[in-house]
Amino acid sequence: MFMLHGRLGAKPGKRDDLLTIMSEAGESLPGNRLYVVAVDETDAEGVWATEIWESEQAHAASLRLDHVRERIARAMPLIETDGIRQQRLDARAGVPD
Amino acid sequence: MFMLHGRLGAKPGKRDDLLTIMSEAGESLPGNRLYVVAVDETDAEGVWATEIWESEQAHAASLRLDHVRERIARAMPLIETDGIRQQRLDARAGVPD
Repeated sequence: MFMLHGRLGAKPGKRDDLLTIMSEAGESLPGNRLYVVAVDETDAEGVWATEIWESEQAHAASLRLDHVRERIARAMPLIETDGIRQQRLDARAGVPD
Repeated sequence: MFMLHGRLGAKPGKRDDLLTIMSEAGESLPGNRLYVVAVDETDAEGVWATEIWESEQAHAASLRLDHVRERIARAMPLIETDGIRQQRLDARAGVPD
């Protein structure tokens, strides 16, 4: 199943604000099985998201939802775009229902 | 909450065997909230595990369970120990119940 493990890098001093936006409990996301937001103590400016989706299409569709676009619009000014990294995975076992 | 995102590298030709062992539905693991096993299409020998535990101690305790030790014993001969990587994270939102 489609899985992403990625980093967003915050602008200096903006990590906690970015973490707050990314951690908001939002409306349901069709096809989403996991959306964990985490920090790495060795990475002071990073916010990590680990996502599992029933398909890559479900992930792409989520980015067109109004409430997701609104959240992205609030987060973007806090993000250093050159600090973005993303690993694409295929989850084979242990995916939450 | 204590989170690990890590890679085990299989010995040549052993990735599918390692994936099978790591994907076995086992007995319950006290304190475990997530245990996803995945592959990365850019990493032919890697098996990736993403785990969330209620505490670092719960994770450590799991490694002493007989059924976990038995599984590790079967997996170890398939693993290139210099291919092990692990990221430690602190999951802040979206942890499954």
